[in-house]
Amino acid sequence: MARVVLGMIGLGTVGSGVVQLLAQHKHLQLKKIAVRDLQKERAANPTCPITENVSEIIDDPEIEVLVEVMGGEEPALTYIRRALEKRKHVVTANKEVLAKHGPSLFQLAREKGVTIFFEASVAGGIPLISTIQRGLGANQFAAVTGILNGTTNFILSNMEEKGLSYDSVLAEAQRLGFAEADPSADVDGHDVAYKLSILAALSFQRFVKPEDIYREGIRNITPDDLALAKEFGYRIKLVGTARNTDPKNKAGALAVRVHPTLVPLAHPLAAVSGSSNCILVNGDAVGEIIMVGPGAGSLPTASAVVGDIINLESALKLPDFASYFQPSITSEWSKTASPDDWTSPYFLRLSVKDTPGVIGTIGTIFGEHKISIQSIIQRGVADRRATIVILTHDVRSGNMEAALADLKKCEFLDSVASAIRIYKAA
Amino acid sequence: MARVVLGMIGLGTVGSGVVQLLAQHKHLQLKKIAVRDLQKERAANPTCPITENVSEIIDDPEIEVLVEVMGGEEPALTYIRRALEKRKHVVTANKEVLAKHGPSLFQLAREKGVTIFFEASVAGGIPLISTIQRGLGANQFAAVTGILNGTTNFILSNMEEKGLSYDSVLAEAQRLGFAEADPSADVDGHDVAYKLSILAALSFQRFVKPEDIYREGIRNITPDDLALAKEFGYRIKLVGTARNTDPKNKAGALAVRVHPTLVPLAHPLAAVSGSSNCILVNGDAVGEIIMVGPGAGSLPTASAVVGDIINLESALKLPDFASYFQPSITSEWSKTASPDDWTSPYFLRLSVKDTPGVIGTIGTIFGEHKISIQSIIQRGVADRRATIVILTHDVRSGNMEAALADLKKCEFLDSVASAIRIYKAA
Repeated sequence: MARVVLGMIGLGTVGSGVVQLLAQHKHLQLKKIAVRDLQKERAANPTCPITENVSEIIDDPEIEVLVEVMGGEEPALTYIRRALEKRKHVVTANKEVLAKHGPSLFQLAREKGVTIFFEASVAGGIPLISTIQRGLGANQFAAVTGILNGTTNFILSNMEEKGLSYDSVLAEAQRLGFAEADPSADVDGHDVAYKLSILAALSFQRFVKPEDIYREGIRNITPDDLALAKEFGYRIKLVGTARNTDPKNKAGALAVRVHPTLVPLAHPLAAVSGSSNCILVNGDAVGEIIMVGPGAGSLPTASAVVGDIINLESALKLPDFASYFQPSITSEWSKTASPDDWTSPYFLRLSVKDTPGVIGTIGTIFGEHKISIQSIIQRGVADRRATIVILTHDVRSGNMEAALADLKKCEFLDSVASAIRIYKAA
Repeated sequence: MARVVLGMIGLGTVGSGVVQLLAQHKHLQLKKIAVRDLQKERAANPTCPITENVSEIIDDPEIEVLVEVMGGEEPALTYIRRALEKRKHVVTANKEVLAKHGPSLFQLAREKGVTIFFEASVAGGIPLISTIQRGLGANQFAAVTGILNGTTNFILSNMEEKGLSYDSVLAEAQRLGFAEADPSADVDGHDVAYKLSILAALSFQRFVKPEDIYREGIRNITPDDLALAKEFGYRIKLVGTARNTDPKNKAGALAVRVHPTLVPLAHPLAAVSGSSNCILVNGDAVGEIIMVGPGAGSLPTASAVVGDIINLESALKLPDFASYFQPSITSEWSKTASPDDWTSPYFLRLSVKDTPGVIGTIGTIFGEHKISIQSIIQRGVADRRATIVILTHDVRSGNMEAALADLKKCEFLDSVASAIRIYKAA
């Protein structure tokens, strides 16, 4: 069997899993691993040499494939660029580098006749990339939607089950190692935004700049929101979506967004627990395909990395190999649609003074902005304050923003405690 | 872009979908279609010539790929063999031909340096084959489990929802076109058995003869079974499983089976409705991956066929192309494990004479066969007859058979109305 020589950068959670799996695949030779700090204790005990000098890998002509599992933007980006320049294939789990620099990296790979494999960069062990790229190749995609971050899913599940606040569940997650000391990448939606940029590139052949992705995190979600949502038949999840608003136009705007979303309890997204990921892919021929599996973890993510290496290795000796595996992604960043033009139903929680005519005024303001109310109930009157919960029918986001601005001018309104979108099928 | 010339045999439900999808992929040229009867009315209106003479396709040297979507064992098998002999690649949706003749067909393809693509043969539009073959390539598989037949899923769902008998729901399904006039292929589990044979070949590198697959259909399931199962927190589904009983042994026995199964209501398999399929793939590195999607239908199945053609076409001009795509499947049929040695919990429904000591006697007999009872309840006493419902803990099938044989000797037993296995995670 063919044999491929690999060099790896990074030996953390994912890298340790890769070392463990490669031991079962003897025709894949891991020649050397570069790490930042040789003294650090590690889970893995690789049989190959370890170095702090990355050049020993990038400048080694015998190494054909760079496996990059260090994560983060720099110096990973520089190392990947240098490897591509040296005509090495790259297998990477690095969502941040791909989302921020995908267009130029794939362009460089094309120029050098090599490829970038990145199954592990999205949804951990779920073979989502190969499914979109190969299995569903006959389809034009309308949308890719999913729960793509295990940390926020863990926090929301625990808040709902235990009725605890965001802060206390976050602290517990940090204690258990499920959340970082600085949780922003997860809880503010950056991680999901990176993954959506990559999924957009695969599904619609163009990357979206992470800063152009609409992003709302979960910091403001309260146990009240979760309990009220459940009462109405919903669960709140952090859902990411990349949608093609103009499928006939190859340079048309994409609507790419991550925000808390009320999902019907019977929907597959509502059943996703802990660090599992769940992705819905909508194609014009196939309809909807749902994939569920481990979105993180050492061996599941290593399964994706080593799967890439095996696919690469089995074809590496073919001439023109690269042209088969290079995804057709343009080197231009995509335009994005204005969030104002999206439509979805909304869940609103308002804190108001308990005075007569409040519901009438709200109804009038919403009517002026063409917002149709599905249900409106008053809750928890105390100290002359009341909570009003509103579920609307489908409404344009711009109209909702305008209606909420008008509401805020009303004497009776204390605050718009929550305004959360309700899931709408692709 | 490369161009590939196709010939197709069959223009029914799947073939019509293929014609429709190929119209969007201009670089895939469908040159000619062979059908059994030119006079038959069809949904599709292809722009290419149609013939009743298959040789016009198989003997045409310009045609590089045979797309076989006629279904059934013969003459499809003969046509596929002839095409492979002529060194044409084959894309097929034919589960029966592959399950019954897979070893010799893949052997022939290897000899001739061509490949057989078969994504559409299992689970319709769900890209399950490419997921197992490519996306999860780093894994050793323990088991593949799923709901793989839409007709029986439709029947069981409707029986449960409406409390109707098997016969009346089958008649309705036949009227709606969801079941064949002769429903045996679906309701007796043959269709699932064919698919399991193919999944075993992909997951464990060896085909299982369809007649070696343990097969129980749904004809004996009653509304009482469905209602009682629900009361205990289960739904009855026709579940197929292929399991590797001896992963370290490349020629070890496989346990391959299809039978009605009580699935916990909260399990993803329980949520699968209508013609959807749901498959659980268990790999040593990744853990469990779940895929859900349309298991049948014209365009979803065509999505799989045309996806195969696109993957084939994009690499067809590479030398040694075939070696990359040929699955590593042995030409020997697999051994199968004895059903007696499987273990699972059981659901039993017994019809007994309402006399004292019945439950004591049942408990004693079960104890003698090392069967541990989880719960036993008596129901619906009338005319001195009672129904006894038993849920057991994990038990060896052989022991259960022996216990039931002993029970049948008891004076008080009218009948073992049902003995259905309960789902056990891989």
